[in-house]
This record gives sequence, C-alpha cells and structure tokens, in this order.
Amino acid sequence: MKIFAKNHYYNLEFKNSFQKLYKEVNNATLIIIDKKVYEILKNNLNRFKKKIIIIKASEKNKTIQTTLKIFKIFLSKKVKRDDLIVAIGGGIIQDLATFTTSIYMRGLKWIYFPTTLLAQADSCIGGKSSINFSNFKNILGNFYPPSKIIINTNFLKTLNDDDIRSGIGEIIKVHFLSGKNSINYLRSSLKKHKFNKTNLNRLIKNSIILKNQILKKDAEDKNIRLKMNYGHTFGHSLETATKNLIPHGLAVNIGLDMANFFAFKKNLITKKIYYDLNKIINLNLRKKDFKKINKKLFFSSLKKDKKNKRNFYGFILPYNFGKVDLFYYEMNSFNDEIINDYFLSIYHKRSISE
Amino acid sequence: MKIFAKNHYYNLEFKNSFQKLYKEVNNATLIIIDKKVYEILKNNLNRFKKKIIIIKASEKNKTIQTTLKIFKIFLSKKVKRDDLIVAIGGGIIQDLATFTTSIYMRGLKWIYFPTTLLAQADSCIGGKSSINFSNFKNILGNFYPPSKIIINTNFLKTLNDDDIRSGIGEIIKVHFLSGKNSINYLRSSLKKHKFNKTNLNRLIKNSIILKNQILKKDAEDKNIRLKMNYGHTFGHSLETATKNLIPHGLAVNIGLDMANFFAFKKNLITKKIYYDLNKIINLNLRKKDFKKINKKLFFSSLKKDKKNKRNFYGFILPYNFGKVDLFYYEMNSFNDEIINDYFLSIYHKRSISE
Repeated sequence: MKIFAKNHYYNLEFKNSFQKLYKEVNNATLIIIDKKVYEILKNNLNRFKKKIIIIKASEKNKTIQTTLKIFKIFLSKKVKRDDLIVAIGGGIIQDLATFTTSIYMRGLKWIYFPTTLLAQADSCIGGKSSINFSNFKNILGNFYPPSKIIINTNFLKTLNDDDIRSGIGEIIKVHFLSGKNSINYLRSSLKKHKFNKTNLNRLIKNSIILKNQILKKDAEDKNIRLKMNYGHTFGHSLETATKNLIPHGLAVNIGLDMANFFAFKKNLITKKIYYDLNKIINLNLRKKDFKKINKKLFFSSLKKDKKNKRNFYGFILPYNFGKVDLFYYEMNSFNDEIINDYFLSIYHKRSISE
Repeated sequence: MKIFAKNHYYNLEFKNSFQKLYKEVNNATLIIIDKKVYEILKNNLNRFKKKIIIIKASEKNKTIQTTLKIFKIFLSKKVKRDDLIVAIGGGIIQDLATFTTSIYMRGLKWIYFPTTLLAQADSCIGGKSSINFSNFKNILGNFYPPSKIIINTNFLKTLNDDDIRSGIGEIIKVHFLSGKNSINYLRSSLKKHKFNKTNLNRLIKNSIILKNQILKKDAEDKNIRLKMNYGHTFGHSLETATKNLIPHGLAVNIGLDMANFFAFKKNLITKKIYYDLNKIINLNLRKKDFKKINKKLFFSSLKKDKKNKRNFYGFILPYNFGKVDLFYYEMNSFNDEIINDYFLSIYHKRSISE
C-alpha cells in the first residue's frame, strides 16, 4: 500500500511473520526497541544485542534528553548517512525514532514495526513526532515518515485489554470523521465481532485507508489534517487532569463524547446524533476509565491547546453525522459551564455506576 | 521568484529598503539576529529590544545547546503555532533559525533576511540546516525553508574583503557546475567588473537561479543535489586542517581547484580545462588564503566525509567543462599521493609566492 506524505510515497506492509522482522534487524546498523517488546523477543534478538538500543517507553523518557543520548550512540557506533535504523515499539518509540533519524546527518533511512494497536491503526501513518521539553508535553517535533512500515498483528496478542481498547479509541475517531458509511460499519463491527483478531485486522486496515485519505486531501488544504485532532482537545486535558492515569486512546474516546456533547449543546448536532455516537463510544468504555479529575488542571490545560487563538478555544466538533470542522468559542463562563455540565451529568454518573 | 522545495514553493524578493525589514520586525513575535548586524541597525531596532534574541554568530554557538536556549525563550515568550519569527544574519543565524522554527510545535512560519554574500548568493536557497553536536561539526540538521527570503544588498557594504571573496567562492562553484555558458559569463564578469555592486547583484541573482534549477531537478533525482558539494569535500578538510583560519567560501574555492586537479590527474579532464578553471579561481584568491595546513588532520577529515562508502572516497569531480558527478576512489597511498602532489606543486607554491 502506498502512503502519501508531502510529495513522496512510502510503503506499508502487513506481514505476520517474525522472520521478516529478524531479517530487517539483521540488515540494520542499529535497532531502537521498547523494553517490553525486547523482553518478549529476547531469545531471538540476543545475538544482535550489540546493536540494540533498549528504551523504556514512558512519557518521562520521551524527551529531548533521550534524543541526545540516542545521537551519542549513533556517533559512537559511527552511523553513516546510508545506514539503516529499525524501530520496534509503540508511539513513544516511534516519536524518538522519527526525531533522531530525521535530524542525524539530515536524515537516515528507517523501518518501523509498530507493536501496539494504537500505533498500527493510527500513529504509524503521517510521520509525526512529539517530544517533551522543559515540562511542556509534545512541544517539539517534526514530520519524517519511515521508509517502510511493517505491521505484524501477532504483536497484538501481547497486549492487555486496556491497550486494545486504547487503540480502539483512535479507530473510533477516524471512523467518526469519515462519514455515515464508516460509522455504520464501525457500529456493526464493534457490536458483532468485538475485538477478535480477524475483526481487528479489518479495523486496522480500514483506519489506515481512512487516515491516508485525509492526509492526501491535506496536501492541498492544511486544515483538513486538523480534523484528526477530533476528541484530542478534551482528551489531552483529561490525561493532564487525571495525571495520565487514563490511557491515551481512552482519553480520546471520552474526549470524543465531550466534543459531541458540546456540539449538541451548541445545536451543531441533534440530540439523536449525540446519543447515537455516544452508544458506539460506550461499547469501548469501562467504568474504571472514568478516573477522578482535577478540574482546575483540566481547564488550565484546555486553555493551552495549540488550536486556540487569543481568548478563543479552538475545538474540532461535529456539525452533522460523520462531518467535523474547527470551531472557535470564547473562553467564558458560559462555555465552560457546558463542560462542567458534562462532568456532572455524564462523566460523574459513569464514574459511580456502570 | 518562486523557489522550489519538495512540493511547495516559497518566495524570494530583492528589496533594498530597510523599511521593509523594520515592517517585518514589527509584525514578528520574535527576532533572531546576528550580534554584528544588530550593532549596525541598533538605533532602529532598539524599540523592539524585548523581542530580540541577539546571537554571536560563531561556530562555537552553532550547537544543539544554543537551539535549546532558543526553545526556552520561545516558551517563556509563549510563542504559538501561528506566530512569526524573523531571522537576520548569515549562515549561522540561518542554521539556528531553520532548526528551531522547524522543531518548535512542528513548525513555525519564518522570514529570513540574509546579510552576507555567502548567504544571499548560496545558503539561503535550499532550506538546509547544519548544527554541531558533541564535537562533531554539522552532524545534526534538517530541511525547512523560510516562508519568505528578502535580499537587501545594502548589507554587503558592511562586509570586508574576505567576506565578499568568501561569497564569491560559492558563486564560482555554482557557475562551474552549470555548464559552458555559465563559466564563460563568470570569467568575463570577474575580470571586467570585479566586485562592484551592480555586478554583485547580477552574480547573486544568477547564482540563485542556477541553484534553484539544480534543486528542482533534484526533486526527481536525489543525487543531483550532491553536486552542490563540489569543492566542499576538500574545502571542509582544508578548514579542519587550518583550524578554521580560512573563511568557508575561500576553502571551497581552493577545494574546487583540488577537485579539478584530482580530476585532471585521473584523466577525467584535460590539462587545458584544469588551467582554464584554475585561472578563474585565482581571480578570487590571495596569497594569505593559503594557510599552513596540518596534513594529518586534512586526511583524517577527508576520510570522514559523508559521501564516502567503506574505504572509498566519494568525490564530486568535473569530467568535462561545466559537468560534474560523484566518483569513488579507493582510499590508498596512490590516490593520497595525488593530493600530496597538489600541496607540493600548487598549494605550497602559492603560500610562498604570489
């Protein structure tokens, strides 16, 4: 499958064989790998130990300091411009690999094996990186897609229920903003098959195709890509306000519900559409996902969002079934009250009863 | 004039009015400026002092540490994604501005005022950055052209003879690799008019057009851009071997002569072509440019060049009048002897007699 990025295409393959992975590891000069994944593949990767950089995939390590450590390893291993780097892991490994391979000697070739559902169905497409710096989350970053992405869905067997549902969160988002047919397909898929392997495979492929369509359109209109932020404005603030206790994709999931609720209160969508989407979202949520939130942190984070302009919130909201766009709303008590209302009428209720 | 970069175009203007500069400075959220240039424009820039970042443009400051300091200023000034950064200075200011604006929030809009001949005629085109890290020169970097480049040739009046000749060095390079007509034009231009202002204007415009043509072709064939490295393989090693006593463009100038000499000794070009080009190069050189060199440092630097593959030198060499390409030569005593021969028969002679 050809994936569009600016004016060049890169390759994405589905390959459920670990032999392919060991072959690319063998070809590579260096491997950047998530510690958890390394533990799983240890027996087969041990012989490559000398060229393996093992990283604990945590928010705390997704920093500019870690990238400088990686650059130092590149230097000590005398990495040259035509050398190959292989990255194996989820979004954090992808962020670090994107940033370091793009900057070292102005760009190295790299191959990415996404290992989480979130990375396979969403983040591996688009070439974005996000790096923390000086207590600011995701403040630095760039665009640099790998030369090749290889998706091995066998990795999904190693994930727990929260990891799977977190990935489903982003899958729901991309289907929600891709129109009526996508939403209807998603509804029946989540209801009938739930999370069995064949169904996940289909959902991953579908999500990639939908995201790729959005990126292609974005080559002409920069704002289209912003739609991918649907659910993320509220989602990021939920992450901050719960001290990252809630997995990213699930925060996005509740964030989608909040965006839809806000849109419904602003008469952008009908009550019927809100509840229709709400039912799909709820298929992926558990009571335990509704963590205790610090409202002060929530609103201060919301006010710092990159899409805001002066004293206006920039929200991606639905204005019809399967249609979203960027809307600006003044930061005032009237609008904040709608959000408070969500917490009282929906969030709080879910958090005390299933 | 439209400048090609990947799949988008950016603008370049010639504007010999400082009013234009003050207008853009007024629009900008922050200004990154070379200390020397700030001193010259001080009286008019003083009122913007609060948003001005003054940087001493030295190789020592062209580091990842300086970029982190700039990021911290961006954060403290609450720079947002749609804010404008203005950069005013030569290549080093350009490197720092390219890197920081590209990485902060994944890309800010920036306008560049190149102030040296080298930056105006050569480096401002192409969007490259080079950053030093951990004692390795130019090891990090990326591509991120400004939204607009504004060339004010009044800045050239503030430059000394070495700065001007250093710029001419890169002007000679781009004319040398652009065919017969370009070389003939350059020869007569350098002979007749020398470095007067009208002539410099014409040479700058010409160089930009020629470089732009090369970058456009490179969109299809990655190797074409490598030709811009003509003279730089030997030039960089000369800089290292003279401990940076020789200005960049003049090192490139002697580097061109060395590349041509090597090509002549390898029968890629005739003796006549070598001497023809040598005469043009000499129009721009002075006896004092031939600094004492440390040969050990020269060869160790040459062996580290990014174009090398295993134990082969990767040299950009002429194979005809106005035609260059990438050639590989084994790193052996036979080939090193040709370079030694250049030092003995030409470099050393120039360094002791005019």
